[in-house]
Amino acid sequence: MTYDIAVIGTGPGGVSAAVTAKVRNKSVLLIGEKDMSSKMKKAHTVLNYPGLPDITGEELARKLSAHLAAMDIAITDDRITSVYDMGGTFALQGKSGEMYSAKAVILATGVVSNAQIEGEDVLLGSGVSYCATCDAPLYRGKTVSVIAYSADEAKEAEFLAQLCAKVYYLPMYKGDVSFGQENITVIGGKPVRLERGRLITDDGEYDTDGIFVLRESVAPAKLMYGLDTDGAHVVTGRDMSTSVKGMFACGDIAGKPYQFVKAAGEGNVAALSCVKYLDE
Amino acid sequence: MTYDIAVIGTGPGGVSAAVTAKVRNKSVLLIGEKDMSSKMKKAHTVLNYPGLPDITGEELARKLSAHLAAMDIAITDDRITSVYDMGGTFALQGKSGEMYSAKAVILATGVVSNAQIEGEDVLLGSGVSYCATCDAPLYRGKTVSVIAYSADEAKEAEFLAQLCAKVYYLPMYKGDVSFGQENITVIGGKPVRLERGRLITDDGEYDTDGIFVLRESVAPAKLMYGLDTDGAHVVTGRDMSTSVKGMFACGDIAGKPYQFVKAAGEGNVAALSCVKYLDE
Repeated sequence: MTYDIAVIGTGPGGVSAAVTAKVRNKSVLLIGEKDMSSKMKKAHTVLNYPGLPDITGEELARKLSAHLAAMDIAITDDRITSVYDMGGTFALQGKSGEMYSAKAVILATGVVSNAQIEGEDVLLGSGVSYCATCDAPLYRGKTVSVIAYSADEAKEAEFLAQLCAKVYYLPMYKGDVSFGQENITVIGGKPVRLERGRLITDDGEYDTDGIFVLRESVAPAKLMYGLDTDGAHVVTGRDMSTSVKGMFACGDIAGKPYQFVKAAGEGNVAALSCVKYLDE
Repeated sequence: MTYDIAVIGTGPGGVSAAVTAKVRNKSVLLIGEKDMSSKMKKAHTVLNYPGLPDITGEELARKLSAHLAAMDIAITDDRITSVYDMGGTFALQGKSGEMYSAKAVILATGVVSNAQIEGEDVLLGSGVSYCATCDAPLYRGKTVSVIAYSADEAKEAEFLAQLCAKVYYLPMYKGDVSFGQENITVIGGKPVRLERGRLITDDGEYDTDGIFVLRESVAPAKLMYGLDTDGAHVVTGRDMSTSVKGMFACGDIAGKPYQFVKAAGEGNVAALSCVKYLDE
């Protein structure tokens, strides 16, 4: 089905947008981490979310989750790796391999805290990918590298190892890393530069046909072609509209300050602007 | 004392601004209706304040009030009728007659829903006043008119009647109007035009030395000389700064949509921008 509005991201901005869109009788696809934003849980104490004094990030996430439940809004547990403007509708590529369709999109994915790797820009789509599920078939029988920013990505490496001859795995996080599959090699060092067919780290160089850069969220300029950005942020107007018609943004991705209630406020505005856009 | 920040208005925008300013260790004067915004209570059900599903406006006002109490922020029950830029500090004229002082100001007064009366602009400060307490002494022994937008203003008329020879009282609200003082005359009709020394209504004309226009909130352009406005709204940047250095705005006064969580989000941004301004 084609939804009225796809909201990407389940932090306070995304939840706020979804709730207001639902109140305004739009069909809403809310897509992101089911267990709310992992970032929210990192906030020990939130003193300034008006109406909920002295709450932990985890409690606030629980309250947002309960709000969604009370309004019958389900979270679709997936990660969007690309959005395509189909003229009148948007196609959203999920990490799961699923494609979603919506008439309008609200970006609420937060900010990508990890800096881009040199060469990543240039090679995107021709050697660099953000989605194992989507692009694994291109590398059947070949050698790929996975630069993994969270332990969750180990599953992606295991999936790739089923199709590819060899997988290099670079964990960018702390913690145990071990695989049962013999064709996965865990390598140390940090990526320094990506070249066509070659991954250069500060601890050695590796020949590789493809490089999968797997972060918690995709930088906005990579998510959607033609989207005006300013560093890690999407450029928005006061109505939270972006340079792409039918696409809106809210929360950290729309700029500082990075605050829960600011994100929630912008989510509300983004949803109402989106409703107005759909009604016109 | 001179406060770091004066927040004018006790709706979600003002409360949010006060709470965040306090978290950032600034001294805060929060000034407005003690019983929270009367407007909030008019909202029967609020479905889209994230984290507090299906709440009444009155319950939300109670929760905001509890949040202020939890953070030891008191509301100063007064109405600001004028703000003066003293260069480095602002002087705030209260309806009570009290003068307040602050290094920076956040406007969160909501929107004035009543249209201006013809001639009001021109005569402001020379025949038209917004503050009985402040300007009553100018009309000792003379005739004044009170255009009252709420029943609360009856008290102001009674006060004026103690000093002035004659008071015309035009209630712009529904409900009983009667006075014990013989020198107060309740008149019908709606004000059509204000002239120097003359009040013209659709039901007769009256000679009057002064005219008091008493609304729940003062239009922003009247509140602060030199403030850029766009209709009923104050023009703000994304950081909620206004055209007056050191003055910020949030909530309905800063523009549509008129939504609780949007106001709260903007209050947060206004406070953080204000803190940044003070620290520079």
